[in-house]
Amino acid sequence: MTATDSLPAVLDRIDDDLDASLERLFALLRIRSISTDPAFAADCRAAADFVAADLRSLGFEASVRATQGHPVVVGKNAISKIGISKSGNGQAAPPRVLFYGHYDVQPVDPLDLWQTPPFEPRLETLDGGRKIIVARGACDDKGQAMTFIEACRAFKAVSGTLPLDITMLVEGEEECGSKNLFDFVRANAAELRRDLALVCDTGMWDAQTPSITTSLRGLVYEEVRLTCADRDLHSGLFGGAARNPIHVLAEVLAAMHKADGSVAIPGFYDGVGELPADIKADLAGLDLTPEKFLGPIGLKIPAGEAGRMLIEQVSTRPTAEVNGIIGGYTGEGAKTVIPGKAMAKVSFRLVGAQDPEKIRKSFRDFVRARLPADCHVDFGNFSSAPAFAVAFDNPALTKARAALAEEWGRKAVTVGAGGSIPIVADFKTVLGMDTLMVGFALDDDRVHSPNEKYDLRSFHKGIRSWARILAALAG
Amino acid sequence: MTATDSLPAVLDRIDDDLDASLERLFALLRIRSISTDPAFAADCRAAADFVAADLRSLGFEASVRATQGHPVVVGKNAISKIGISKSGNGQAAPPRVLFYGHYDVQPVDPLDLWQTPPFEPRLETLDGGRKIIVARGACDDKGQAMTFIEACRAFKAVSGTLPLDITMLVEGEEECGSKNLFDFVRANAAELRRDLALVCDTGMWDAQTPSITTSLRGLVYEEVRLTCADRDLHSGLFGGAARNPIHVLAEVLAAMHKADGSVAIPGFYDGVGELPADIKADLAGLDLTPEKFLGPIGLKIPAGEAGRMLIEQVSTRPTAEVNGIIGGYTGEGAKTVIPGKAMAKVSFRLVGAQDPEKIRKSFRDFVRARLPADCHVDFGNFSSAPAFAVAFDNPALTKARAALAEEWGRKAVTVGAGGSIPIVADFKTVLGMDTLMVGFALDDDRVHSPNEKYDLRSFHKGIRSWARILAALAG
Repeated sequence: MTATDSLPAVLDRIDDDLDASLERLFALLRIRSISTDPAFAADCRAAADFVAADLRSLGFEASVRATQGHPVVVGKNAISKIGISKSGNGQAAPPRVLFYGHYDVQPVDPLDLWQTPPFEPRLETLDGGRKIIVARGACDDKGQAMTFIEACRAFKAVSGTLPLDITMLVEGEEECGSKNLFDFVRANAAELRRDLALVCDTGMWDAQTPSITTSLRGLVYEEVRLTCADRDLHSGLFGGAARNPIHVLAEVLAAMHKADGSVAIPGFYDGVGELPADIKADLAGLDLTPEKFLGPIGLKIPAGEAGRMLIEQVSTRPTAEVNGIIGGYTGEGAKTVIPGKAMAKVSFRLVGAQDPEKIRKSFRDFVRARLPADCHVDFGNFSSAPAFAVAFDNPALTKARAALAEEWGRKAVTVGAGGSIPIVADFKTVLGMDTLMVGFALDDDRVHSPNEKYDLRSFHKGIRSWARILAALAG
Repeated sequence: MTATDSLPAVLDRIDDDLDASLERLFALLRIRSISTDPAFAADCRAAADFVAADLRSLGFEASVRATQGHPVVVGKNAISKIGISKSGNGQAAPPRVLFYGHYDVQPVDPLDLWQTPPFEPRLETLDGGRKIIVARGACDDKGQAMTFIEACRAFKAVSGTLPLDITMLVEGEEECGSKNLFDFVRANAAELRRDLALVCDTGMWDAQTPSITTSLRGLVYEEVRLTCADRDLHSGLFGGAARNPIHVLAEVLAAMHKADGSVAIPGFYDGVGELPADIKADLAGLDLTPEKFLGPIGLKIPAGEAGRMLIEQVSTRPTAEVNGIIGGYTGEGAKTVIPGKAMAKVSFRLVGAQDPEKIRKSFRDFVRARLPADCHVDFGNFSSAPAFAVAFDNPALTKARAALAEEWGRKAVTVGAGGSIPIVADFKTVLGMDTLMVGFALDDDRVHSPNEKYDLRSFHKGIRSWARILAALAG
């Protein structure tokens, strides 16, 4: 019996078992696994043990692995040992998948803004009947990760086995930078290297529209330190003759963008492609307006490349931003100084095949070309990561989109995330795997804030969604 | 017998009395009149008493006047009471003069860098026979102020009277901002309003070339606070669409100067005149090179208006300088923020008849014209002072230049000071008086630093210079 054949029974099982699924999620939510505060180290360990035990109950060979920080849970499905033979009909074998999630949560301060204690999960019914799960981690990432685990559980219950070769990787330091995970992945590459990674830590486009995040922008982050005079000067004595590094810096930074909002650094757009027409049409259909996107932060005019949709500007187009600047006197009142030094932090979000090293070099050349002969520059680099993108014709992506469309009754959009998720970049560069990021969070989930919630509908249909995706990938 | 007739005897007297003059200066230098530190309040009072007593010995009616801070010494010459009648030959009567100086000194930290205690004045003979007076205040301003008082003393000794109607104003808070002097001058305007002010707190052009400071640049000081979004944003989420106030600020500041170094703000040069040809030729003759002026601070290329001499750029031309800038993340490492706010401090040095209020308004209009519609600006103003200048054909200036030339055997140059001296501006605006700033400090006097010194030659020829100037003004 194939996974596809089992699917109707699996979906029924999910519906029937929802109360028990919720109980299991609540048990995990009660564990105070705040990773950034050392006082909760034992709680983090308890959460790891909880996840490992749960995975074992599903037939995973699960272990809690020590790191320099909080442990990582690794679960291996028994069928991964026997291997997957190529199917006889010429189709490619189903992909072996690595599911990534995290059991740690954000701190809960300010505690007094919580309507009920953050680690006492509860179900609340809002006006209109909408039901929400309220607790720290309800969405990020315990609720989301459990959608995948519960889908596995339903398959196991119905067919006695999982539909695919699945490896689980559940870490405990995502909320404090995943600082030990990168080494862990490198050290355990052979074990973790599968055909495809799945992540459930992103959101829906809106409450009706499922979404797969297929690209992440890369990042080059530079610090520019200019020196003119070898000391701070009095503007009464030297004003008019001494080079002012703030002026030089302002000229360099102002030259970085053209009047149309595009980036003026030579070669910057090398490797930046156009979206396929159908994907672009999908994005246009989402109708992300300045009012909706910029209104809540007090803005109204998109500042990016003219002629690009706002949703392109923030997800699939590269950017240059000054993240910080300082020079001279910045305290209260007046000081008539001409500073000797000025500094700016400048970062670039990259897309497509933009080469971080080339961008970095081109930027530095751009700065140097604008310096007077007696002005000196030093650079610092804090990030140099390429963009990540799943090909739009990746078969797994096509199957997952179709599965989501069936569950939600609406076409699943593919979106680009404007920021980077470093571990996904590592899955690509270290393990050679693409990642499908599928999640069911909503914009109003108050992730990282008091009264974090997850819609019961997100949880329930999230489980069903993963069941459909697993069946699609297996079939 | 006129003052001019007396002059040879007065100069002889000065030469003969130099040791005693030095003893009197040393007595004043021993008083620890550090004005900025309340622990030395009694010392400041002692210095004021010393000056008042000394003035009385010269026939001044002298008083120590209380202020909110350290007292002000005012001395009135007896002949001021009897008035000066117009001379019969049609020449204008000699000017009644106000001499301004200060008895307070800078702190002495770091004390361990002093070769001998700062309040134990001594005469040191350098290699080559050059003699210097070493002590805190040796130059600034006890030594310089005493050149004037000793010149008065010599006149009194030789002719029994002073050559002019002289009012003395010696304050005790110059080194901490003259904060009570401005009100004092306003409150005592009738008493202090004379025809001409004399100040001895500036320097020679070099050890051979006497100099009169005839202009001070004015100052407009603005703070520019830009707001775009109503909070700081994550550049991964908003980068490409959200307006970055650092970009806006950089564009405004970069637009403030043209490629030739001139200021691009409309109307900025209204009221800026050209120097008379002879004065310009004098300045050119001083040959202030980039090597000499900028070399010591690590620069080599003048950054001001193209086609202007460096000495013009720093003294007689107006400037626009960014004195400080801050926005976004400025700590260690990287933070991918798009800030909601950015701030810069911008100041303008004014010359000639530039109108501070018009400059301020024109600058604000210039900034506003460059703001996107959803970017907001607030301004703060910390200074709005016009430039000060003595007319080059002022008869007192002509006489003083000639007197200095006789003493030093070299033409006395007129220079502009790049910075402001607020009390001189007040003498003009409140009392309606021009000021001649004549001083004998040298560039290596270590004013405000450990081992402050004053050349014995500066002291001696400074006294002779004032004697000549007083005689010239009286004649």
